[in-house]
Amino acid sequence: MQAGSEQLGSSCPCEPPAPFLYGAETAGTRPGMCVAAVLPAGGSGERMGGATPKQFCNILERPLISYTVQAFERVTWIRDIVVVVTEENLDLMKSIIQRYGHKRVTLVEGGVTRHRSIFNGLRAFAENMPLGFQLPKPEVVIIHDAVRPFVDEDILFKVATSAKECGAAGAIRPLVSTVIASSPDGCLEHSLERTRHRASEMPQAFVFDIIYQAYIQCSNYDLDYGTECLHLAQKYCNIKARLIEGSPDLWKVTYKRDLYATESIIKDSLLQQICIITDMKEDTVQVGFLLREVLKTQVKQVKGISSSLCKNVHHLQNMFTEQCFNFIGINDKDSNFLVTQQIVDILKSTSLAVLYPIVLISVHFIVSENMSFSSRVEELSGIRELANEAKKKNILVYGLLMDYTKDNLRLRETVTQGTTVIAALIKDRSPGLIGQILVV
Amino acid sequence: MQAGSEQLGSSCPCEPPAPFLYGAETAGTRPGMCVAAVLPAGGSGERMGGATPKQFCNILERPLISYTVQAFERVTWIRDIVVVVTEENLDLMKSIIQRYGHKRVTLVEGGVTRHRSIFNGLRAFAENMPLGFQLPKPEVVIIHDAVRPFVDEDILFKVATSAKECGAAGAIRPLVSTVIASSPDGCLEHSLERTRHRASEMPQAFVFDIIYQAYIQCSNYDLDYGTECLHLAQKYCNIKARLIEGSPDLWKVTYKRDLYATESIIKDSLLQQICIITDMKEDTVQVGFLLREVLKTQVKQVKGISSSLCKNVHHLQNMFTEQCFNFIGINDKDSNFLVTQQIVDILKSTSLAVLYPIVLISVHFIVSENMSFSSRVEELSGIRELANEAKKKNILVYGLLMDYTKDNLRLRETVTQGTTVIAALIKDRSPGLIGQILVV
Repeated sequence: MQAGSEQLGSSCPCEPPAPFLYGAETAGTRPGMCVAAVLPAGGSGERMGGATPKQFCNILERPLISYTVQAFERVTWIRDIVVVVTEENLDLMKSIIQRYGHKRVTLVEGGVTRHRSIFNGLRAFAENMPLGFQLPKPEVVIIHDAVRPFVDEDILFKVATSAKECGAAGAIRPLVSTVIASSPDGCLEHSLERTRHRASEMPQAFVFDIIYQAYIQCSNYDLDYGTECLHLAQKYCNIKARLIEGSPDLWKVTYKRDLYATESIIKDSLLQQICIITDMKEDTVQVGFLLREVLKTQVKQVKGISSSLCKNVHHLQNMFTEQCFNFIGINDKDSNFLVTQQIVDILKSTSLAVLYPIVLISVHFIVSENMSFSSRVEELSGIRELANEAKKKNILVYGLLMDYTKDNLRLRETVTQGTTVIAALIKDRSPGLIGQILVV
Repeated sequence: MQAGSEQLGSSCPCEPPAPFLYGAETAGTRPGMCVAAVLPAGGSGERMGGATPKQFCNILERPLISYTVQAFERVTWIRDIVVVVTEENLDLMKSIIQRYGHKRVTLVEGGVTRHRSIFNGLRAFAENMPLGFQLPKPEVVIIHDAVRPFVDEDILFKVATSAKECGAAGAIRPLVSTVIASSPDGCLEHSLERTRHRASEMPQAFVFDIIYQAYIQCSNYDLDYGTECLHLAQKYCNIKARLIEGSPDLWKVTYKRDLYATESIIKDSLLQQICIITDMKEDTVQVGFLLREVLKTQVKQVKGISSSLCKNVHHLQNMFTEQCFNFIGINDKDSNFLVTQQIVDILKSTSLAVLYPIVLISVHFIVSENMSFSSRVEELSGIRELANEAKKKNILVYGLLMDYTKDNLRLRETVTQGTTVIAALIKDRSPGLIGQILVV
């Protein structure tokens, strides 16, 4: 029935998780059972008012669903991730999986309603798939919306272990607005007591046999008009569904404003680290340390700043596993783009920029005594071409030209002005300004 | 009881509304009755996880509540706007009213719960205020949250006229999540049928005597734990409350992500118009027209672009009433900042930039034959000081340096590259990059 099923990428559970930026980590804790996930992504996104279903809307030039898949990939104890999409989006989803290097993902064609899509997803573990491929049946299955990208390992762990205990478990949140029932003539009938009610969110988890049996037994009416998986499990399998308070980050991307919020949250999370790279020259190392000091006080979200030598490729590569998406390359006055170019080359050799746009700020100096500002600007005009090349790999290069002076106080002042510009560039990540040389 | 009551600004109903950017206009339609508004703003914002209550959080350097007040000010048929804040925020709110020039606003001190605050707000129309001041009693009163800034005239009109008819009316929205009731042991008890339930939002409107009587009669329990004004009116005054479908924009700013969304929505709305200003020289007029043509095709949200002569102050001032917040000043090669400076001076003489940061892009040329790029950059270094001065008035000035050529095709290409930079600058409105000269 799930005609478009196809295994993409590797299903090896030992692969390291993709870098991920959000939420609490339950590092090392594993639920001690076989867990899989089903992500229904068949929605049409009619509430967005746009033609593109919201799960395929781009955030920093990457579709929303890719962020959600990534959130599951980084959880090593989730073995298979089944993504359910409508027939017309199968090819699009395949290309997303390939382009962003997603692993452990199986694609299944959806049904006409959300419940039918989830049912199709579950069948991939229980019935023969068309190409003779069948996923191993998990003990517990997590169901999660493709349009809730900020799910973290902590809540996944909680719903999975609670489900194993009770049969079913789901995340809830306090109500933001009072809920009311309306009468047929469009008037208020009654309002619900807010303290006794909750919004049912995702993720939810189930003992696989329970939810699968519930879907097999449930009526067509349930499949077409039901909204609550927990309710189905309870109704057909006589279990109690445990409710677990989730974080506000579990909210569902529903309206255009939610896409705006998602982009800002992701941009914010990318600010957390800046890596400063210099060569071995005394002047550049000095500016590097000064920049590091000032950035630590000015840019609120800088967690760690590393100063390193450019030839130390190993150290630089460590930055990647530490999820650094902002680099400052400090170039010696005689070498123009040497350090910047080296950083670009190393970044290109990794897959870091595949997932997020990397900001690389190419810092240059004017040493007042022996060069003019204007000739220096002219010398650096090559940055345009460098930036255009790097952009093809999702690396955003901007230039920053600073006065260098031996006077430590004045240098500190210049560097402080420089950090204002740096902070603005890494905050906005604007592709429209790449290749520009900003001056302080 | 409302010790901090004080009338600030004028209460003349004939004043023109402040410029406002959002939503449908019910231009010219007036509900034919005396309407006032009460904005409870006493919340502590604990869900935001920050120290500042959300109504006082800054969006583009202006507190959220000022946007909501502005939304009411522009509706000419709303006579008095009562804002209810806690005692410790009275001075802050006074300074906001003064700084952003809000009119028709009366400040009232809140109670310890939302209902007690609303009750205090209503008393300003019905009981003697401490300083002997009492607002005229309205026929209908609209109650709205300070943290729902995007309320438009259309929904205000609908709730006000429905309230006059039925006694009470309120905006509702479809539920985004399924609502469930939980059992005392933290399990799912039942889930509500989504089609029969709605989220109760704001604004709500009431015949004044009805809601005031409801508050006089209602119990302490209602005042302390009730959530729904419509419910109180129904319970104590035996009326039917009409429910009206509102737009998604009515949502309540609750979490940090909502502040992000609000900022993006406001920034988006500021993009809608760009005004291009040149002097009378042939070259600059030509570039102005070309820029206008290209911008129309490249920047999606440009609604109207005006080319005008800088001396035509009257025309420029029209731009303000048309709510234009983006200006491009095209300066002749011989005059450096003449046009830009004139725009800054005119902008300073208006109050436009009091409400929103204005972007002003100062365009300059290199005429390849008779000047060098580098010397031109040096000539324009004065932009830094100009930008720093303008920033004090909330005007963000950026420089754009373009190659000028008589070759129309090449010029068009340069202008097209210029629009990419312009689009990035007006989208981000980054204070950190003011005074920079970007080059295409």
